[in-house]
Amino acid sequence: MTTEHTRASAILAVSTVIFALRKDDETGGLPQVWLPLVRRIREPFEGRWALPGGPLRGEEDLAYAAARTLNDTTGLTPRYLEQLYAFGDTSRSPAGDRVVSIVYWALVRSDEAERASVGENVRWFPADDLPPLAFDHQLIVEYALWRLHTKMEYSRIAHAFLGERFTLAQLREVHEAVLGRALDPANFRRTIEASGAVVATDEYLTGTPHRPPRLYRYNDSIDLADAGPLPRQQHPFGGEK
Amino acid sequence: MTTEHTRASAILAVSTVIFALRKDDETGGLPQVWLPLVRRIREPFEGRWALPGGPLRGEEDLAYAAARTLNDTTGLTPRYLEQLYAFGDTSRSPAGDRVVSIVYWALVRSDEAERASVGENVRWFPADDLPPLAFDHQLIVEYALWRLHTKMEYSRIAHAFLGERFTLAQLREVHEAVLGRALDPANFRRTIEASGAVVATDEYLTGTPHRPPRLYRYNDSIDLADAGPLPRQQHPFGGEK
Repeated sequence: MTTEHTRASAILAVSTVIFALRKDDETGGLPQVWLPLVRRIREPFEGRWALPGGPLRGEEDLAYAAARTLNDTTGLTPRYLEQLYAFGDTSRSPAGDRVVSIVYWALVRSDEAERASVGENVRWFPADDLPPLAFDHQLIVEYALWRLHTKMEYSRIAHAFLGERFTLAQLREVHEAVLGRALDPANFRRTIEASGAVVATDEYLTGTPHRPPRLYRYNDSIDLADAGPLPRQQHPFGGEK
Repeated sequence: MTTEHTRASAILAVSTVIFALRKDDETGGLPQVWLPLVRRIREPFEGRWALPGGPLRGEEDLAYAAARTLNDTTGLTPRYLEQLYAFGDTSRSPAGDRVVSIVYWALVRSDEAERASVGENVRWFPADDLPPLAFDHQLIVEYALWRLHTKMEYSRIAHAFLGERFTLAQLREVHEAVLGRALDPANFRRTIEASGAVVATDEYLTGTPHRPPRLYRYNDSIDLADAGPLPRQQHPFGGEK
């Protein structure tokens, strides 16, 4: 029955899958989905790459712990932070200790990701070319990528990769990076305009050599599909959870 | 950094929101969404109603623990069991102990719910007329209801409330109960047939006084929208997680 107050024998950790778009000169300058990983410096899986994370501290809310470990690893503040799933299979760690990981996923802007501090044991990898990962982190990354694809289709989280104002070409590049394929510019423009998700502003992108493209913003009257069960609130590092 | 193997100061519990449709004679026989609650027999919140659940045992996977506590409370095997969310705000329990609850939600068939064993401190309530609940369980139930509404629109979880074969009227009753409003039978039939989600069989409902209605089944070639990150597998009490 409801006996929430008995000790359970599991360690509770919070980890975060952090996505950003980065342009790689080797791919002709097209943006791709990248994520930062941390090299483990102890057993189990010493030397393997793993998601940033750590044990939940007694005084921390879950989203706070996710934002803190993200900030510890990259110095970044996420534009979007959402709980992904709790992973707790007894087989997920080879060690004696049982670890249940509550995993968040986060989006950060490209220009922020490029400024991100990178510690000795932190490195960014393209999502489609990851090294072998510790624990079940490969499964976790795959699920986070699936969630990113799904969310991109019916909500405005592409926003989190961009600034407040963006051109339709920039928005298309985000979709192309997440979907992993080129989209027809004219079809994309028709589809996105018909969706009502973006609104044309009276501003234009400056600093381009030719006719400056118009800037768009997201239509705030359309809600995110799933903001989670809790009211939207400022989290400690300034973003919204 | 990734230090998953340090002790964290939180108790890990698993709770489940169990939904079934029940016909209440007072409402003219229309089905409504009901859920079982457990009366707490200790502080905090002694005497209040709460979701069935308990601490995670060291040797149990999360979904196993959810199915077990569900079975302990009701004697039922869920037709549908999915992780809902991990609730871990530091403020959610007034006691000194920090409790993080990983919450599942489950669907059971009406005929199974009617056969459910009901212990001394277990009672079923209509979802729209709940007593004051312990902890943040009111918030959890509201979020589970929101997820049920959302899922009903784009996947075939109504299936879990019904048998393998059902009439369109029975399927419409499930949607009406979840949405909390009557639906036009002709419009419902057109919409559901256009969706391709159900397939007409050559069987008819027996035991009706008039022309027997045709039985339908779900179209297995359409996937559930979100089966979670793990492969679908049998869970220990016979259902699918």
